[in-house]
Amino acid sequence: MTELCEHSLGEVSDLLGAGEISSLELVEANLRAIDRSEPLVHAYAHVLADEALAAARAADAEMAAGGRRSPLHGLPIGVKDNIYTQGSPSECGSRVMAGFVPDFDASCVARLRAGGAIIIGKTHCHEFAYGVNSPPSRSPWALDRYAGGSSIGSGVAVTSRSSFGALGSDTGGSIRVPASINNLVGMKATYGRVSIHGVVPVAWALDHVGPMTRTVRDNALLLAGMAGHETRDPTSARQPVPDFCAGLEAGVKGLRIGIERNYFFYAGLDAEIRAGVEAVIAHYQKAGAQFIEISLPELDMTQDALFTIVLCEGSSWHRKLIRQHADKYDPATRAMIQLGELLPATQYIAAQQARRVYREALLRAFADAKLDAMLNPTMPVTTVPQDQLNAPRADGFADTTVGSMCHHTFNANLAGLPAMSVPCGITAAGLPYGFQLTGRAFDEATLYRIARAYERDHDWHTRRAEALAGGF
Amino acid sequence: MTELCEHSLGEVSDLLGAGEISSLELVEANLRAIDRSEPLVHAYAHVLADEALAAARAADAEMAAGGRRSPLHGLPIGVKDNIYTQGSPSECGSRVMAGFVPDFDASCVARLRAGGAIIIGKTHCHEFAYGVNSPPSRSPWALDRYAGGSSIGSGVAVTSRSSFGALGSDTGGSIRVPASINNLVGMKATYGRVSIHGVVPVAWALDHVGPMTRTVRDNALLLAGMAGHETRDPTSARQPVPDFCAGLEAGVKGLRIGIERNYFFYAGLDAEIRAGVEAVIAHYQKAGAQFIEISLPELDMTQDALFTIVLCEGSSWHRKLIRQHADKYDPATRAMIQLGELLPATQYIAAQQARRVYREALLRAFADAKLDAMLNPTMPVTTVPQDQLNAPRADGFADTTVGSMCHHTFNANLAGLPAMSVPCGITAAGLPYGFQLTGRAFDEATLYRIARAYERDHDWHTRRAEALAGGF
Repeated sequence: MTELCEHSLGEVSDLLGAGEISSLELVEANLRAIDRSEPLVHAYAHVLADEALAAARAADAEMAAGGRRSPLHGLPIGVKDNIYTQGSPSECGSRVMAGFVPDFDASCVARLRAGGAIIIGKTHCHEFAYGVNSPPSRSPWALDRYAGGSSIGSGVAVTSRSSFGALGSDTGGSIRVPASINNLVGMKATYGRVSIHGVVPVAWALDHVGPMTRTVRDNALLLAGMAGHETRDPTSARQPVPDFCAGLEAGVKGLRIGIERNYFFYAGLDAEIRAGVEAVIAHYQKAGAQFIEISLPELDMTQDALFTIVLCEGSSWHRKLIRQHADKYDPATRAMIQLGELLPATQYIAAQQARRVYREALLRAFADAKLDAMLNPTMPVTTVPQDQLNAPRADGFADTTVGSMCHHTFNANLAGLPAMSVPCGITAAGLPYGFQLTGRAFDEATLYRIARAYERDHDWHTRRAEALAGGF
Repeated sequence: MTELCEHSLGEVSDLLGAGEISSLELVEANLRAIDRSEPLVHAYAHVLADEALAAARAADAEMAAGGRRSPLHGLPIGVKDNIYTQGSPSECGSRVMAGFVPDFDASCVARLRAGGAIIIGKTHCHEFAYGVNSPPSRSPWALDRYAGGSSIGSGVAVTSRSSFGALGSDTGGSIRVPASINNLVGMKATYGRVSIHGVVPVAWALDHVGPMTRTVRDNALLLAGMAGHETRDPTSARQPVPDFCAGLEAGVKGLRIGIERNYFFYAGLDAEIRAGVEAVIAHYQKAGAQFIEISLPELDMTQDALFTIVLCEGSSWHRKLIRQHADKYDPATRAMIQLGELLPATQYIAAQQARRVYREALLRAFADAKLDAMLNPTMPVTTVPQDQLNAPRADGFADTTVGSMCHHTFNANLAGLPAMSVPCGITAAGLPYGFQLTGRAFDEATLYRIARAYERDHDWHTRRAEALAGGF
């Protein structure tokens, strides 16, 4: 029998539902996988072994007595460390919050637990999810390279098979970028779809929380377990949560997909990624999807607008904390927060106006071309060695790598529309990369359907990183 | 027969409906009143005599042929000069916009015209409605004293009988303050009830537009003619507009009215106003209303929060204009705009958060005490000579008069709940003052009903200013 942790979340859910395995076996297998991989990849800030084992025994007893609460009942899940977990450390990758143990669950965690999911551990993230310090996590795809952020530990854990699925958060690409780098499916759902109550904010106008998984179905299952209205969260939407798995296999025939080439396929797009994404387009065309070229010049505003909102809202949240604990911040994070305090209100207001202009332009493009989705590369570059993040790009393009990494993802946070990264291919150098699907508000189901239509015919997403192949 | 302009808007509407007068007679009478009062009170920036006469003739022809479009058909109305009127000057009390003639109507004006109302002229306002320069308008109640702002011309015109009713705008009290000073009914309806499309913004999070009239019924008629959803205005609410006059005479028996005494009845409250408002409370109690004391310590935040939002959003709107035309701004207005440019984004965000905290506290107070309304003085002071606005208060209270004037009105702009000023009494010195009713969201009808129950038994609102008695 395949090592349990090689199975996808959906597969172990099926095995558990069929009574072929127990939750305790799953959690024990997960803890063994953690023991094997952690010395190499450092995905977890905190492993909650005792709590998870106790929860597994309770889940087994409950399932034996009365069936399963949900497809996630008894399944261990990783949670990014900026997401509150009641009774367990939630330190947000920071020294400032070292030792902090919240007395309540983030809304999304509470929903997962209500569905019977088990929190196996808290995954590393960049300090306060700013994405500028250096967490210890390493991708098994290239141990010397940056594994993406800020949901770095979640990405590394899921690709390392030390998690079946994990939660990330995404303010400018922090789910989709590590998903792309780690060969995972990462979903930033519609703004308001998953409550951000209990998630330490970066910028509440842009913050999202969502699932990172190995397969599309895993992702749909996990999103269904997290989504729904939260009365304590004014950003939370009153929208029914559909069965995201229901239409997964419906294919793409007749769907209309928009392609914007000026911004997303610009000169700074890596040649291998470009070819890979063109192959995805060809695959979908062959399967009956229609591609429509769209114009969206407002994309040019998205970087400035996003940076400004992040700096202003982030600095607002940290205003007291940084005065009390300046010495505990990483200098790079501290510099961002201090910079944000210098920005005038008029610039923040202009950025919020630009956000609305972009959102309206994108909605109009969707409406005018009757689009079901928009498709582009998730990132224009692959990842680089950690120490070259801030260096000019190796291809001579006038930007740093880290500056390019979120070039394609910022816009969906501004628009608040759902966007996901889907494993696309692996470069000759062995580096994975993804393509990004953006959808209509609250229509994540169509994105999953499109993603599944590619996944079904490709095995990229099941390929294991070389670093893991022989080892643990 | 009483001079036509002595009649209220509702009365002339009835006369017109009964065929006893024509729209042309009304407009001519209005123009005569303007000719008489303008040399004294300077209410109008622009009188639109020719346009109004032509519109009256057209209205009379249409009404003769096919009946009336609405109770406002054929009635002349004044419009504050910061509200766009197609084809007529809309200069916003400024030299910067001198000669500006918009090619479209503000949404509220378009609705009034669609209902058959006639724009008789544009009324003076403080420059860009900031409330810091000195417009020429003078109240007939005390020609040497400040007549309130920023809807100063609308207040003066209606109380001078040179308008049957006029539109004002209100970002921190600019309808209710001049209503109180001029012995008028002034309504700042729920945020979103009347579209602000085509109204030059002060601070879009707080801006409202609404009617200023001599009677409660007039106000209800005029609000009904202005209110409704505007698709071009993202702040506009999709709420049905009820018949605000339907329940006017229902009385207050059984209604629950909240009283907050710490902030609204503070030491800085003028003794005559205090006694007058206590008499109003006694009147309502006798009529069967129940008064419930409530606590609302969040009121203390409202001044700082409002000033910050006004400075930041205002400066954002003026950002380009003030660079092109700095010399055309009044120095006092320019100083406010320049100050706003210096405020950091974090302070603006904190103010917006305070706004939400106050709104939620007020909503909770309404819900907990099952309130139909909240009652307090509109202003803690009466008006003073123009040159003493910025001097310490004559009663020795540690604030300037102008600083005190909006002390009681700011909070309703932050909360977005409907608030109106109702004529309350006239001091021994002959200065009118009002009381303020604040209501549930989109429940202006209950405020009108309460106001009418006081108006019915008091004649303050019909008293004419001494300065007008003998004169014109």
